Amino acid sequence: RIMRPDDANVVGNVHGGTILKMIEEAGAIISTRHCNSEGGEPCVAALARVERTDFLSPMCIGEVANVSAEITYTSRHSVEVQVNVMSENILTGAKKVTNKATLWYVPLSLKNVNKVLEVPPIQYARKEQEDEGKKRYEEQKLDRLETKQRNGDVIFPVINPEPHTVGYSQSSLIHLVGPSDCTLLGFVHGGVTMKLMDEVAGIVAARHCKTNIVTASVDAINFHEKIKKGSVITISGRMTFTSNKSMEIEVFVDADPFVDEPRERYRAVSAFFTYVSLSKEGKPLPVPQLLTETEDEKRRFEEGKGRYLQTKAKRQAQMQQAAQP
Amino acid sequence: RIMRPDDANVVGNVHGGTILKMIEEAGAIISTRHCNSEGGEPCVAALARVERTDFLSPMCIGEVANVSAEITYTSRHSVEVQVNVMSENILTGAKKVTNKATLWYVPLSLKNVNKVLEVPPIQYARKEQEDEGKKRYEEQKLDRLETKQRNGDVIFPVINPEPHTVGYSQSSLIHLVGPSDCTLLGFVHGGVTMKLMDEVAGIVAARHCKTNIVTASVDAINFHEKIKKGSVITISGRMTFTSNKSMEIEVFVDADPFVDEPRERYRAVSAFFTYVSLSKEGKPLPVPQLLTETEDEKRRFEEGKGRYLQTKAKRQAQMQQAAQP
Amino acid sequence: RIMRPDDANVVGNVHGGTILKMIEEAGAIISTRHCNSEGGEPCVAALARVERTDFLSPMCIGEVANVSAEITYTSRHSVEVQVNVMSENILTGAKKVTNKATLWYVPLSLKNVNKVLEVPPIQYARKEQEDEGKKRYEEQKLDRLETKQRNGDVIFPVINPEPHTVGYSQSSLIHLVGPSDCTLLGFVHGGVTMKLMDEVAGIVAARHCKTNIVTASVDAINFHEKIKKGSVITISGRMTFTSNKSMEIEVFVDADPFVDEPRERYRAVSAFFTYVSLSKEGKPLPVPQLLTETEDEKRRFEEGKGRYLQTKAKRQAQMQQAAQP
Repeated sequence: RIMRPDDANVVGNVHGGTILKMIEEAGAIISTRHCNSEGGEPCVAALARVERTDFLSPMCIGEVANVSAEITYTSRHSVEVQVNVMSENILTGAKKVTNKATLWYVPLSLKNVNKVLEVPPIQYARKEQEDEGKKRYEEQKLDRLETKQRNGDVIFPVINPEPHTVGYSQSSLIHLVGPSDCTLLGFVHGGVTMKLMDEVAGIVAARHCKTNIVTASVDAINFHEKIKKGSVITISGRMTFTSNKSMEIEVFVDADPFVDEPRERYRAVSAFFTYVSLSKEGKPLPVPQLLTETEDEKRRFEEGKGRYLQTKAKRQAQMQQAAQP
Repeated sequence: RIMRPDDANVVGNVHGGTILKMIEEAGAIISTRHCNSEGGEPCVAALARVERTDFLSPMCIGEVANVSAEITYTSRHSVEVQVNVMSENILTGAKKVTNKATLWYVPLSLKNVNKVLEVPPIQYARKEQEDEGKKRYEEQKLDRLETKQRNGDVIFPVINPEPHTVGYSQSSLIHLVGPSDCTLLGFVHGGVTMKLMDEVAGIVAARHCKTNIVTASVDAINFHEKIKKGSVITISGRMTFTSNKSMEIEVFVDADPFVDEPRERYRAVSAFFTYVSLSKEGKPLPVPQLLTETEDEKRRFEEGKGRYLQTKAKRQAQMQQAAQP
Repeated sequence: RIMRPDDANVVGNVHGGTILKMIEEAGAIISTRHCNSEGGEPCVAALARVERTDFLSPMCIGEVANVSAEITYTSRHSVEVQVNVMSENILTGAKKVTNKATLWYVPLSLKNVNKVLEVPPIQYARKEQEDEGKKRYEEQKLDRLETKQRNGDVIFPVINPEPHTVGYSQSSLIHLVGPSDCTLLGFVHGGVTMKLMDEVAGIVAARHCKTNIVTASVDAINFHEKIKKGSVITISGRMTFTSNKSMEIEVFVDADPFVDEPRERYRAVSAFFTYVSLSKEGKPLPVPQLLTETEDEKRRFEEGKGRYLQTKAKRQAQMQQAAQP
C-alpha cells in the first residue's frame, strides 16, 4: 500500500491508527481463510484482542507498507496471528521495521453470529512452539477477564479547565457506523475502531502539549463486545499519566445501538495509548507534566506510572538478554 | 474530528460541503436517538429541511471541528435540531464559531419507509420556547410548500459561451449512489447530497471568477424526495446573481432510479449557495459581474438581488438590535 | 469532479487508476440506463472489457475532470461505450484531452446475476457506423478468447533479488472487498479493480526506476470473472519489458471467495500497463533496462517488445494518415 496524504498528520508521518487498521485487516484475512480451510460451516474471524504494540519508527507519506501475517497458535476456539509491518521508501529502497503485532481472532458463524465455531489445528515445527503458544493463550485469557471488570468508568465534561489538567485535553468524537465500517457479519471491523481510538488519543495528546505528536505504543486491547451496523459510537479519551517524554491516554468506546435493538448504551472497548511529542526534525521533546486534581486522577496517574515503569523494566531486561553472548 | 487534506481546497480551507455533511450527521444521530427513546416502532430520522446557514469563518486543515447538537422543538411528526460548529486550532488552542445550523427531521419506520411515526414530545424550560418553536415550525412549513412549486427548471448545455455569462460557468456532475452514501433505510444521507451540491456550486463559482472561492452561506434547503441506493444523481449548478463581492449559485439535484423502479427522473432537491472570492491573504476580492442574456436569466438575477438585499437588511436589523442597550 | 490530494502521487499528478475508475463509472451509468430504458427485467450493466487506453496528458490536483460518455454500438448482449475525459484548470480555463476509452458492458439481471439480458438496439446515423461497430465487436470477441487461455501464470517471491531484475521490483497487495467496492449486484465494480491494478503497477515501476512515474497506457483488459463481496483479492505485478523510455508491467488479479463459497482461488483479470518516468519538470527520463534471467522472463521480454513495436507502428501510421491532405 502506498500511504496517501489523507493518512498523515500535518508534519507528514502516517497515523498510528492507519497502521493498526492495516494490521487488523491482514489478521482478519489470514484467520478467516484458515478457519474456512476445512470446509464445514462458513465463518468470519472476529478480532478478540490485540497484544501490546510498539511503533518502532514512523512511516512517512510516499512509503510503501509491507505487511506480512502468520498464524502462530490455535486453541480450540481462537487463532493467534503475528503481523509484521515494514516501511519501504520505494525511491531509495530503504526498509525499516515499523511494528510487530500479535492479534487473537475468534471464528463466528456466518449464519448465526452468536455461534463460535471450532478452529482447525495448525502443525507446529517444534513441540516448544505449541507450549509457548499455549502459555501466551492462557496469559491473554487472564488479562481479558481483568479488563472486563475495569470497564465501568465515564468521562464528564469540565467547564473552563486549567491548561495541563486532565479536563483541559480530554476529547471525544461521535461516529455513525456505516456499511463500509463493517464485516460481512454486519459488525464493525476491529481495525476501524482502533483507527478512531488513535484519532481521539492524538487529539488529547496534541491539546496537552501543543506540538506535533506520534503514537509510540498501544497497550493490549480487548474487544469484549461487538458493535452493530447503524450504531452510534462515542470515542472518549483522557490523559492519565505523563513521564518526561511521553503521555499515556486512556480511550473508551461506547456503543449505542439505538435503532433496531432495545439495548442500552454499553462499553465496547477501552485501551491505553502512549504518545510522544516530536520536534520538526523528529527528535523527542519534553512533555508538560499532567496536573492531577481529584483523587481518581491521582490514582490513575500512579497506575499509569506503574505501567510505565513495568514496560521500561521489561525493555531493559530484553536489551540485556539481547546483549548477552 | 480532525480535518484532513482531502477535505480542503487548494489554498487550505475546508470545503463548506464537508461542514454541512458533519452538521447533518450530528443532527441525524441526535434526532434518531430521540425518536427511538420511548421504545415503540424502530425508526430512522430523515432530513426534511435545513434552514439558511451562514459560514462565519473558514476552517483550516489541522483544526479540530467541535460539533454540538440540541433538540429545540418537536411537532407531532418532526424534530428541530440546532447544531453548532466551532473550529479549534489544537496547537494554539484558539477557537472560533464556524457556523450554526437548524435542521428538521422526520422519523420514518425502519420496516416501512413510507410510514412517518410520531415524535416523543420534549420538555421546555419556559413556555415561550415552545411558542417560538411552534412559530418556526409554521414558517418552515409554508416555505416548503412554496419551493415545491418552483422546482420545474432544467439546465441546458451552451455551445461556446462568452466569459462571465451564465452558460460559461454552469456545471454538473453525476454520481452513482453507493451503499456508503446511504442510511439504514437505503436512502441517501441529506449530508451527502449537500456535500455534492457544494462541490458543484464551488466549480461554478471558480469558473466564473477564476480565483480561490469559499462558501459564505446556503439558503434553506428542502428535501422533498428521497433518493434510493443505486440511483444516479445529476447535480447541476448555474449562477443567478452577483453583487460586488458575492456570487449566488442555484443548484439542482435530479435523481434517476433507473434500475429497480419504473419511475422517471425527478427533481429531488434544489438550493441557493452564496460564495465569495478570497485573495491568498484571505481578504474578499471583487467579483466580475454576471452577464445575463435571456429574459429568464434577467428575471433570476433580479430575484437573486431581492434575496441579497433582504438578507442584508435582516443582518443590519440584527446588528442594530444587538447594539441596543 | 475536482481532483483531491489523496488521488495524487508525490509530485502532484492524478493517478491513472483514479481516471480509469471515473471512466468506468461513467460507462456503467450510461449502459445501465440504456439497458433499462425499455422496461422489462431490471438489470445492471457489468464491465466485460476495456480497450487499449492512452493517457495523453497528466491531470493535476485542483483540475476538474470533464467526463462524457456515448453509446456507440450495441450487439444482442453487449453495449460499446466511448468515454472521453478532458481536464480543465478552472482558474485559467485551459482544457486538455486526458484520454479516450472504449468499454464493453453486458446487462445482468438484478434478480439472477447469471442471466445475461438482451440489449435494446440503438439507431445509427449512418449505415457505416453500424458496420464499423460490428467489426470492433468481432475483433474484441476474438481477443477475449485469446487472453482467457493465457491466464494461468503465477508470481513467486524472490529472495535477495539484484536491482533491475524482474524479482527486484515485483509487488503485490491484498484487498478485502467491502460493500463500497461493489455494484447493486454485490460484485466488484470494474473501475475499483482497475484502480488497484494501477496502484500495484505504479509500485513496480517506481521500485524499478526510483523516480516519479506516471501511467502512459493500459492494454485491453478483459473481465472474464466476477468478484463477489467479501472476497479477498491479491493484485500482483511484474515488469515484462523496458524500452529506452517506457516500462511494461503485467498485472494479475486473483480472487479468493473463501467465506461463503466452496470455490478455489481463481484468476479474475490480467492486463499490461505501460509507465514512463518523469523528471520534476515533467520531461521523460531514460529507464534502466530490465535484467532478464530465466527463459520465461526472456520470452516475456520479447513478447513485450513485440507489443511495443506494434503500438509504435500503429501510432506512426495514424500520424501519417492524419498528416495527409
